Amino acid sequence: MSLDNSWFSEACDPCGSAFSLKVVKKLHEETSAFQKIEIYETATFGNFMVIDGFTMVTDRDNFLYHEMMSHPALYTHPKPDNVLVIGGGDCGTLKEVLKHPEVKKAQQVEIDERVTRLAEIYFPDLCSSNNDPRAELHFVDGIKWVQDAAPGSYDVIIVDSTDPVGPAEGLFNEAFYRNCHKALGEHGILVQQSESPLYHAKLIHEMRAAMQKSGFSDVLTYDFPQPIYPSGWWSGTMARKTGQLNTFRENDVKAKPFKTKYYSLAKHRAALEEELPLLQE
Amino acid sequence: MSLDNSWFSEACDPCGSAFSLKVVKKLHEETSAFQKIEIYETATFGNFMVIDGFTMVTDRDNFLYHEMMSHPALYTHPKPDNVLVIGGGDCGTLKEVLKHPEVKKAQQVEIDERVTRLAEIYFPDLCSSNNDPRAELHFVDGIKWVQDAAPGSYDVIIVDSTDPVGPAEGLFNEAFYRNCHKALGEHGILVQQSESPLYHAKLIHEMRAAMQKSGFSDVLTYDFPQPIYPSGWWSGTMARKTGQLNTFRENDVKAKPFKTKYYSLAKHRAALEEELPLLQE
Repeated sequence: MSLDNSWFSEACDPCGSAFSLKVVKKLHEETSAFQKIEIYETATFGNFMVIDGFTMVTDRDNFLYHEMMSHPALYTHPKPDNVLVIGGGDCGTLKEVLKHPEVKKAQQVEIDERVTRLAEIYFPDLCSSNNDPRAELHFVDGIKWVQDAAPGSYDVIIVDSTDPVGPAEGLFNEAFYRNCHKALGEHGILVQQSESPLYHAKLIHEMRAAMQKSGFSDVLTYDFPQPIYPSGWWSGTMARKTGQLNTFRENDVKAKPFKTKYYSLAKHRAALEEELPLLQE
Repeated sequence: MSLDNSWFSEACDPCGSAFSLKVVKKLHEETSAFQKIEIYETATFGNFMVIDGFTMVTDRDNFLYHEMMSHPALYTHPKPDNVLVIGGGDCGTLKEVLKHPEVKKAQQVEIDERVTRLAEIYFPDLCSSNNDPRAELHFVDGIKWVQDAAPGSYDVIIVDSTDPVGPAEGLFNEAFYRNCHKALGEHGILVQQSESPLYHAKLIHEMRAAMQKSGFSDVLTYDFPQPIYPSGWWSGTMARKTGQLNTFRENDVKAKPFKTKYYSLAKHRAALEEELPLLQE
């Protein structure tokens, strides 16, 4: 069968696969200074944002990505006072970060203000913590922000970016990781979305090698489901400035004052205890 | 964008999503006594089997499903001598089962012999253990097979079936589970593929309730990625005849005499230690 125009399809040609969502109507389309942004209402996934033709976020399944981009890093750091989110314009990662009572300040640095302004309209739930007094939203280049940051000023840096093409390309190299390393405090943790374990093993290995070269003492890649991204299987890669990544604040996870739909003590243990066999080859 | 006929697409209408693979050519098509079977060569997933329009198996990603349908159950049972696979006509689950040196006999009961005959031609790797002297292939109705089985004759029963429509419908109800319970020995374990945690939570809850009503003392659902199935996120549900499902043969997993690409000690621990928060709602 072929799929008609009642579906939005993202075909990943090098992957040889495509993912489609049934669309009810297009709610918005604009070309910002950086990229083309489309918003759809879907039949079953709620609202849906597309950037430059790539699926970004839906109401229904974003919890997987946002929980797994934030809680493993925040529960690994012994005292995550200051958190920086690079990218993350839909504000879903920021919202998860702010669920941690330990966090004193969370800065989101997104290059494209239009992504956030549209998220405020079409994804109000993801933006529901934007007025938290601990939140700061900046709309500037994250690469430069990290370069200019005072040494040791962050405990956790979360790189919640698009794929490593276009505006996000400079977020996947050694120069950027060196600046993150400098901007992090002694126990600092960097975490970055690292694409599909099935499709992008080469990229993941390159990211890990670049993080290690940049001075991080331990690097760990973990996986999670993410239906709307190519292969439906995604990953995050964490790097720790000093020490190992094999422990975390387990008692605080057991007592966490908020609910999660995917992240759990057992998922975190699985993430930290062992690399994916697939990536060891 | 729309997808043309160079893609095979499975649209799941109630899910509102579709998954597509880029196709090089159709290798085979036939209508067996039970269903329509198609085999494609894909651009990046190797060979690909479709039954009645539903994606079944590809060379590239089947390891996820086959490992997760076999190893958690086999490493939970203290001594899995006799294993029954219901369905599983592509023989990939049987191959994983036979990697366990403890297994003395593994019977596969697939209703449609044509699925296996085609798998032998187009998925030779999945069928590479079919001549193992411990393997027995039967092509009869699995529901009747379990009904007629001598009480206590199996240690592990794996239900590796298609979706709960058509020939597989009778594999998802209390009558079938009662017969499985009777056919299992004292420590017996039943495991069944249980669809997508994102899309099929109602079905999963019904399966779990039916298993419990059928006399099983503990039931546990675990998740894993499976790119070609709807949402790319899949699950298995295990039921234990007596005792709990919270322990397994960890030392044997550490010393396992074969490699896996996804299944690991940490993944197994995560599966057994905690239900998915999503399914607790």
